[in-house]
Amino acid sequence: MLETFYFGAGPATLPTTILDKIKNELVDHRGTGLSVLELSHRSEEFMEMLDQAENLLRELMGVSNEYAVLLLHGGATAQYSMLPLNFLHQGDSADYICTGHWSIKACQEAKKFASINAIQALADSELIVVKPVENWGLKQQSSYIHYCDNETINGVVNDIAGMESFNSKDAALFCDMTSSILTRPIQVKNYGLIYASTQKNLGISGLCVMVVKKELLSKGCENIPRVFDYKKCFEARSLVNTPPIFAIYVLGLMLNWLKEEGGVIEMNKRGQLQAKALYDVIDSSEIFKNRVAVKYRSCVNIPFEIEDKVLQAKFLQQAENHKLLGLRGHRSVGGVRVSLYNAMPKQGVINLLEFMREFELSHE
Amino acid sequence: MLETFYFGAGPATLPTTILDKIKNELVDHRGTGLSVLELSHRSEEFMEMLDQAENLLRELMGVSNEYAVLLLHGGATAQYSMLPLNFLHQGDSADYICTGHWSIKACQEAKKFASINAIQALADSELIVVKPVENWGLKQQSSYIHYCDNETINGVVNDIAGMESFNSKDAALFCDMTSSILTRPIQVKNYGLIYASTQKNLGISGLCVMVVKKELLSKGCENIPRVFDYKKCFEARSLVNTPPIFAIYVLGLMLNWLKEEGGVIEMNKRGQLQAKALYDVIDSSEIFKNRVAVKYRSCVNIPFEIEDKVLQAKFLQQAENHKLLGLRGHRSVGGVRVSLYNAMPKQGVINLLEFMREFELSHE
Repeated sequence: MLETFYFGAGPATLPTTILDKIKNELVDHRGTGLSVLELSHRSEEFMEMLDQAENLLRELMGVSNEYAVLLLHGGATAQYSMLPLNFLHQGDSADYICTGHWSIKACQEAKKFASINAIQALADSELIVVKPVENWGLKQQSSYIHYCDNETINGVVNDIAGMESFNSKDAALFCDMTSSILTRPIQVKNYGLIYASTQKNLGISGLCVMVVKKELLSKGCENIPRVFDYKKCFEARSLVNTPPIFAIYVLGLMLNWLKEEGGVIEMNKRGQLQAKALYDVIDSSEIFKNRVAVKYRSCVNIPFEIEDKVLQAKFLQQAENHKLLGLRGHRSVGGVRVSLYNAMPKQGVINLLEFMREFELSHE
Repeated sequence: MLETFYFGAGPATLPTTILDKIKNELVDHRGTGLSVLELSHRSEEFMEMLDQAENLLRELMGVSNEYAVLLLHGGATAQYSMLPLNFLHQGDSADYICTGHWSIKACQEAKKFASINAIQALADSELIVVKPVENWGLKQQSSYIHYCDNETINGVVNDIAGMESFNSKDAALFCDMTSSILTRPIQVKNYGLIYASTQKNLGISGLCVMVVKKELLSKGCENIPRVFDYKKCFEARSLVNTPPIFAIYVLGLMLNWLKEEGGVIEMNKRGQLQAKALYDVIDSSEIFKNRVAVKYRSCVNIPFEIEDKVLQAKFLQQAENHKLLGLRGHRSVGGVRVSLYNAMPKQGVINLLEFMREFELSHE
């Protein structure tokens, strides 16, 4: 019988060892007589979970004590909505680099509360290309520059080296890393703030991880809802109100798994190999087309199309029959999308590539 | 061996049948080959869950089609922070009835964004007493009147009949029902908006249920973060962004369980009986003291003190030895607190009362 593999863009596949662990300790959490679903956020057991998740994140990402680690409600969407309230005082402005759906959304939300310099950073070309940083028209006196590291819908990565070099400038670098966090090494010290929803690489939905320079929190702003006031969240160790406990528990399990699997270096190695194998099949194919220029191709979200839409529908249907699930592209663009987050097993990619090759052979 | 019972105020105890069900279908959700933790919020399986949760809530609470049911991020704290942004236009004001910790917090958050009439509704007396509604000094032209139905920390309920009679006035009634939702019948038509975090009577933390009159949404306000814009949430069927899927799944299980157990009428009957039995033990005791006037006593959160703090510490320790957990009062007030939400089994209350009687006998 074929094994099921799930390529959804988020919520995403979880390691089976983690699912088994959750199942096994669900009714009696580590001898407490309680389920993790019943545990108080003031209990020793939960505080231990919180500590462990924070410490593992610091270790795996290389986060120094100059940074706070916050665990917040509502996913990346709630948090990018709150960035201007937290960091822009009266008269301040920020640059927002728009490279796709998510960075545009963050920009739209920011505009509700502050003066924003929206930068259209995609070149006007047939293939998707991110313009060189020097052509962006960054403002001189922005408080921060916001960008999305990896756009999940079109599978586009930003000019990372270019972005990280900004650390020498005045503006702090704010990055939505929801889809790419812990898939490759980064230099946290180059960033002012990094945030990521957890339903892709870090567990399940309903939680957002934030790494933010403490220095940036010290200013503080007024009139922010307390539960989204990062200074208050930091002071309260992310316990301003009842946190999403189960999502934090799963985050801890994911980080622990990641460490055991070899950490970010290993994840990056695997991810690069898997993505290369998939792009090779696409690029050598007559029917699969990816629209992103090689330099800006994502290793975690790999979309492609089949021009003949009847054939594309057949592809998706047959993939499901082969237990290759979650391959439908985002409803705004259609097509096919393969998401290869850290938890994707090697066998999943092998089965997918084999299926793609066979599909092409039988439809030449 | 003694069975464990958990009296925590939230996160709270869950029915063991639900824990077993979650455990049993965790790895393969109803034949999908995926875990519920991996399911997409755009999948048929999740849409079915969402429909079912909404329909059950409508059925159990008696919610008509004049009302929208929203499932929102961040718990009641995030949502009470967003009420003024959603419902108060420039120049509007609202009355906030303060009867304890939670209603005061909601009031403080509202003040950040609007003109608020804060009403201190507790009388200046030895026992905790809520002032009669006619003495509150409600404003004539408030857009809404906000109150907390049941204050969990001191175990105080509001003057419900008095509050519900406001439906004849212009101001809409907004109620935080986090701790009391579905524990007794209410007339939804008397309210403009009802909201409740799910970690007490409706499952786990990280989710907030909202029932709101559609007519109130139609006005709309500007510059609200999209994910907390109730009009947008309604239009998007609570899927403005990735929702807390697992918490919604548990909500559905809880609502289903509640229906099977006999619904709100039955819950109210059980709850009243259990609370009466506990208050009887307290009131006939020489050592346990509850500080709330009878008329305003909560049936779901029942706090009491033992004057001798050494004895109180001993009580809490011995209770733990008897597998009666989660009895410590809120850290702001100390003491003992018994939370009797819908999922508390009868045997839990029996064991607790027996323990209390024995404790008193051995410490006369």
